[in-house]
Amino acid sequence: MREIREALIDAHRAVGKTNPVAPSITNFVTVEFVANAQLAIGGSAAMVYLPDEGEAMCRLAKSIYINVGTLIPSHKETVPRTVKCARENAAYVLDPVAAGMGDLRTELLQYMKAYPPRIIRGNASEILTVAKLWGLIDGTSGKVRGVDATESVETARAAAEHLAAYIGGAVAVSGKEDLVTDGKRTVVSKGGSAYFTRITGSGCSLGGVAAVYLAVADPFVAALAATNAYNVAGKRAEAQARGTASFQVEFLDALSNLTAEDIAACEMEEV
Amino acid sequence: MREIREALIDAHRAVGKTNPVAPSITNFVTVEFVANAQLAIGGSAAMVYLPDEGEAMCRLAKSIYINVGTLIPSHKETVPRTVKCARENAAYVLDPVAAGMGDLRTELLQYMKAYPPRIIRGNASEILTVAKLWGLIDGTSGKVRGVDATESVETARAAAEHLAAYIGGAVAVSGKEDLVTDGKRTVVSKGGSAYFTRITGSGCSLGGVAAVYLAVADPFVAALAATNAYNVAGKRAEAQARGTASFQVEFLDALSNLTAEDIAACEMEEV
Amino acid sequence: MREIREALIDAHRAVGKTNPVAPSITNFVTVEFVANAQLAIGGSAAMVYLPDEGEAMCRLAKSIYINVGTLIPSHKETVPRTVKCARENAAYVLDPVAAGMGDLRTELLQYMKAYPPRIIRGNASEILTVAKLWGLIDGTSGKVRGVDATESVETARAAAEHLAAYIGGAVAVSGKEDLVTDGKRTVVSKGGSAYFTRITGSGCSLGGVAAVYLAVADPFVAALAATNAYNVAGKRAEAQARGTASFQVEFLDALSNLTAEDIAACEMEEV
Repeated sequence: MREIREALIDAHRAVGKTNPVAPSITNFVTVEFVANAQLAIGGSAAMVYLPDEGEAMCRLAKSIYINVGTLIPSHKETVPRTVKCARENAAYVLDPVAAGMGDLRTELLQYMKAYPPRIIRGNASEILTVAKLWGLIDGTSGKVRGVDATESVETARAAAEHLAAYIGGAVAVSGKEDLVTDGKRTVVSKGGSAYFTRITGSGCSLGGVAAVYLAVADPFVAALAATNAYNVAGKRAEAQARGTASFQVEFLDALSNLTAEDIAACEMEEV
Repeated sequence: MREIREALIDAHRAVGKTNPVAPSITNFVTVEFVANAQLAIGGSAAMVYLPDEGEAMCRLAKSIYINVGTLIPSHKETVPRTVKCARENAAYVLDPVAAGMGDLRTELLQYMKAYPPRIIRGNASEILTVAKLWGLIDGTSGKVRGVDATESVETARAAAEHLAAYIGGAVAVSGKEDLVTDGKRTVVSKGGSAYFTRITGSGCSLGGVAAVYLAVADPFVAALAATNAYNVAGKRAEAQARGTASFQVEFLDALSNLTAEDIAACEMEEV
Repeated sequence: MREIREALIDAHRAVGKTNPVAPSITNFVTVEFVANAQLAIGGSAAMVYLPDEGEAMCRLAKSIYINVGTLIPSHKETVPRTVKCARENAAYVLDPVAAGMGDLRTELLQYMKAYPPRIIRGNASEILTVAKLWGLIDGTSGKVRGVDATESVETARAAAEHLAAYIGGAVAVSGKEDLVTDGKRTVVSKGGSAYFTRITGSGCSLGGVAAVYLAVADPFVAALAATNAYNVAGKRAEAQARGTASFQVEFLDALSNLTAEDIAACEMEEV
């Protein structure tokens, strides 16, 4: 665990020094929150929607963020071309928002099996759905209900570990407590706030922040750094918040003031 | 009026208990505000843009929110298919933002005459324009000026009552004071803040919140619950605000802290 | 300089009196921020994406804002038709976000050479790229890196002056200090905050605010009024901010409370 904490410190410092850009193809609902979270943590943002721009970004940046939250017809071409290019030139983080809902989303997620991300970040339902879609687990998938989690983090543990092993990267499952695994090591990260479920975009923006860390660290460390950052900043924000919107303001403020030591000191345990 | 207040209390409590999802097809400008307002009031959000996803949402949820604010070409198919499916499987709330502007918006609003919403929420100009478009009133329509109201609420009263009777639901007209009618009863709800006109999305998000209440209440009660919630929370927020952005934060905070009794105690009168 | 200050005062007062709408075709990331900044300064907002709506807006409003930040396929038709119509019926402000990245963006910016805006607002890299694209300067262009500036304002001065002369309007180059020129007069405006680079949309929304002023003032005064407003409000916000998100709230609050005298009193010097 000491080794992990040191790697987290290194990752956060490297972001501060190099200000890496992690371009995104992300949904329309929380795109501003994603950008502001990436900037708050010390990274840089660039959002694109056209296929040639997705490819250009993969040649420009070390890591990309792909969130399939609100698809429009052009995503049918943009996402596969970007995913393929990211696999060849960069790394990418996937947030499979609402996995299981809609034909295009399913088609895109199936395509990604051949060009997998280095990090997948989702709630338990989404992780279960992707693992099943890729044939990595049997059994009934998590039920889709809007974009909210309906399964507990623990129920997705096996799916997350299988997925992480398959992609050769890391999977972060967000919930009351968060689980981060690379298929060999599995860590639970604690803190955060119940307010995270009462604002839109905490999960999406966590994925974007993981992509920033992925530009400077390995997938496991990147996924854990982002998760810890959210747990520490979320806990601090809750102490100041007077409602859902002031929570979001306090949260981004806290994120923008985090130190490498804060991220390493987050309550964690191997499980 | 006592009966109405009791129904408002029931509606708000039912939202708190069942956390209903009210999926939206809504504009790009205020989509995050809509989602955060729906979450603040105790509901859940899911935004979609593709036709099969609109239909899937109508089979999944009891009520849908359709806001025609910023159309892109795919809306030409998504909105009619969703509207038709919502009429068959669920109920929907319409916000006819900028009614009268652009060919596609007019085409979509005309289509809705055959598959009407259960609630229409708009400013006076928009309500007048829809009533005229559907042939429910004569005379000159409200003039379109960007997305702002140019007519007073009172001038739209007759149009609102005709519309409500036609759709067999309720119409909410937003203005300095707000009018909610089901064609038989007409109530004016008071409070709010002049700041509502100095931020974008107060009207859009009110429509989204009405859709949350529509999942658990009849159209008149749902429209009034949302309107009252905005008037109470808006008034509280104004007392704390130091400018337009802190007003928005305070408003969402107040919305997230509202009780059923707050909503029932809003200043109202039948007119 | 006294004459300029008086013109700034007149511009801000005219906005307060006439509440001009400055419709936008702008990116999905910061569209809400753009609208809220336009409203905060006393203008009105209306965002569109379809070609006939862009044209309708050019016949309705005195000035338009076009920001090429996040293009989708429909922009291929919407932007040229709007630009042409704006040149014939109104004026427009261009924010060439990420100029140099992607085929469509380059195609659209090239088209604009024949139907130029009255104001261009960008960072140094973007201004250099447009000046080179239009054949107004030789030499290597600014390098594109996401949407961040990589060149200093001073390096773009000659390009800005050439561009301003070519368009018969004004160019505003945003940076640590901001440069505004009409090709004859060049003014540096000071203040602002380092936080502007740690939130998304400060540049985009500045362009939208410039479009509000352009409805009531000449391009040079409009560009300078917007730039000064940002420098004054940014400086005030920084004094109150506890992190990036509270900076944004404080900034919009300060913008919504600015007086004409505040804008005229901003630290400026002719260079």
